[in-house]
Amino acid sequence: MAEFDWIDDGGVTSPAGFRAGGVYTGIKRYGDEPRLDLGLLAWGSPTRVAGVFTTNAVVGESVLWNRALVAGGKGAGALVVNSGNANTVTGEQGARDCRRIAELAASKVGLQPEEVLVGSTGVIGRLLPMDLVEQGIRSVELAEDGGARFARAIMTTDTHPKECALRVKIGGRDYVVGGCAKGSGMIHPNMATMFAFLTTDAPVGGAWLQATLRSVVDRTFNMVDVDMDTSTSDMGLLISSGAGGGQVVDGSHPDEERLREGIQAVATRLARAIARDGEGARALLEAVAEGAASVEDARRAARTIVSSPLVKTMVVGRDPNWGRVMMAAGRSGARVDQRRASVWIGEHCVLEGGTPTPVDLALVSRAMAAEEVRIRIDLGTGGVGTATAWGCDLTEDYVRINADYTT
Amino acid sequence: MAEFDWIDDGGVTSPAGFRAGGVYTGIKRYGDEPRLDLGLLAWGSPTRVAGVFTTNAVVGESVLWNRALVAGGKGAGALVVNSGNANTVTGEQGARDCRRIAELAASKVGLQPEEVLVGSTGVIGRLLPMDLVEQGIRSVELAEDGGARFARAIMTTDTHPKECALRVKIGGRDYVVGGCAKGSGMIHPNMATMFAFLTTDAPVGGAWLQATLRSVVDRTFNMVDVDMDTSTSDMGLLISSGAGGGQVVDGSHPDEERLREGIQAVATRLARAIARDGEGARALLEAVAEGAASVEDARRAARTIVSSPLVKTMVVGRDPNWGRVMMAAGRSGARVDQRRASVWIGEHCVLEGGTPTPVDLALVSRAMAAEEVRIRIDLGTGGVGTATAWGCDLTEDYVRINADYTT
Repeated sequence: MAEFDWIDDGGVTSPAGFRAGGVYTGIKRYGDEPRLDLGLLAWGSPTRVAGVFTTNAVVGESVLWNRALVAGGKGAGALVVNSGNANTVTGEQGARDCRRIAELAASKVGLQPEEVLVGSTGVIGRLLPMDLVEQGIRSVELAEDGGARFARAIMTTDTHPKECALRVKIGGRDYVVGGCAKGSGMIHPNMATMFAFLTTDAPVGGAWLQATLRSVVDRTFNMVDVDMDTSTSDMGLLISSGAGGGQVVDGSHPDEERLREGIQAVATRLARAIARDGEGARALLEAVAEGAASVEDARRAARTIVSSPLVKTMVVGRDPNWGRVMMAAGRSGARVDQRRASVWIGEHCVLEGGTPTPVDLALVSRAMAAEEVRIRIDLGTGGVGTATAWGCDLTEDYVRINADYTT
Repeated sequence: MAEFDWIDDGGVTSPAGFRAGGVYTGIKRYGDEPRLDLGLLAWGSPTRVAGVFTTNAVVGESVLWNRALVAGGKGAGALVVNSGNANTVTGEQGARDCRRIAELAASKVGLQPEEVLVGSTGVIGRLLPMDLVEQGIRSVELAEDGGARFARAIMTTDTHPKECALRVKIGGRDYVVGGCAKGSGMIHPNMATMFAFLTTDAPVGGAWLQATLRSVVDRTFNMVDVDMDTSTSDMGLLISSGAGGGQVVDGSHPDEERLREGIQAVATRLARAIARDGEGARALLEAVAEGAASVEDARRAARTIVSSPLVKTMVVGRDPNWGRVMMAAGRSGARVDQRRASVWIGEHCVLEGGTPTPVDLALVSRAMAAEEVRIRIDLGTGGVGTATAWGCDLTEDYVRINADYTT
């Protein structure tokens, strides 16, 4: 993938046409300090929005609301998000609360409720404190440089906000792609939700938007850990304000691939930041699977490796016990030929064509002390499927955080 | 299930016709003390044996060996097991070593190598120290009360051996069913393998034996955690010596159900012992799923609940954050109607027909301090599928053990 022109301190409001803000309402009560917990992002008249949502059979009210909105195809002009409460498994009252949030945000920015997307993340099974939500929506101020406040408002146990933006030139015009995300460590005390919000000022066709989001998410956010794609409120949205003007980008546009690459670059950076910020994580763990019978098999193997507790503890202990990598690949559902498979940790080949190598395990252990640990496996099937996944190691800290937590 | 007549200190040699022993060879070098690491179980002339094996695409050499033996249908007369090294991903040398182990044991007990079952558990990707293995097989002594030594020889990170036996009366005759197992916590530093060896002196038909083992394992060992059924060397064997005499038990025997229940009772006790002995575990976690569209759905939901890190930390923290139970059920693949589902923790109903109850969460938290924590969920589909799974909570201890470990 080509290099991109990254924007310093960029985020969701870096593309033209977007305004955002974030406030503290008191919904989120982790720790002692007040932290932003309600964010609003608006982009004027409704435009087409692409969305992908959790595959969990139990879903948050905001997911039900947004699925209907995106499927309706009329578009949206604003997104309101609260953190601290997922509004999930909250019965009929939860559904009414979600609609009320959309109504409040709609009246604030001059839209219909059905033109407002909603996001809620946090504890499951508790009713939202609607008085605080209402007060927050009334008081939040929108600004063209408000992306940073929005990115902080959607955080739960994230240790820092995750946002970025880049410039991409298409047909002689400069466009911007921005985004922000909130993460999901392996274990979160209050939630396990991933949000990814991507914005651009390039004008795009509706079908292109949805196909691009699906393709990008499959290669980025869906390759982070395994927990993340199974929580009840996961969502990824791709929003175009169209404020950059020019020819609409769709499948027939000569430079459409370039815009897709820009969106994927933003998403990849956010996905890696989510993995790196797993609770208590010391190292980013990257797994590359090659020689797979299919891309789907490569994805299964790479994802299973980064999400395996056995591999995660292997990394934190700097223990070159690479048999665990084979174990994880083997249980992933991918086809593996154990008589022909090879495994590398960092630059060191530890298994070659099904036979353990005489590598110095002390050297391998030293390579595992890096801040980014790369594991590569050739599944030995002779196929050309390949995929990359990201996760993090598993430290004592992350359990201490969770063991000490009580509602 | 009816009550059974349990035998004090019973195990694999409680049924007539079985002899066993265990020795220390030095293959297993955990900690400072020498611990038994090679066991031999023998029952005279070859008899039919039923086996179930790991579904992992990467398998140990002993699994390949035993699969062929069981499929061949000629039967076996002995089982030799080492702990400390799984002989997995060890290339062609590993295959030769496995055959050599069978040859050594066969010559000791007067059988053909193809009549000896083999088990290896421990670290993956290292060649076996065959000199130690050979010395161990030569020196191990078989005894009619040797089941306890055999049960200790197959342990890896288990904190205590797991064995039991009971008497069952069929057609006026007393038979005995025995068994031993080695566990698999959520994370093990050196291995992740579950062995379950079940023995009986009742004479049984070959087809009945295999069908019974499959049915019993699906309800017991396959319902412990999720890690355990995906390692590279998992195996369950059901062996009949036939030494009890009398009419052969098969599908047409009037009391065949009673023998199946006895085998299932032994397996259930061993399965619960495996869950209870998860590394660092404080509590046994039992999940019951009801109201599922199918038994398969109920199994998925129950297994996902006991294996979810979010649920496990909820239990150790005594945190009645029951939304995690819904999250786990929802991501299990089972059908869930979140508007009609109900959840109980201990005796307390926390979600009823899709609506959170006003239960006192302090009471729920207190119920979670028990040594056995029971979670029950009605998936709300109106179906009659039901299943039970067992796991354990997730404590700081288990991570400390693994974080401190280095090869």
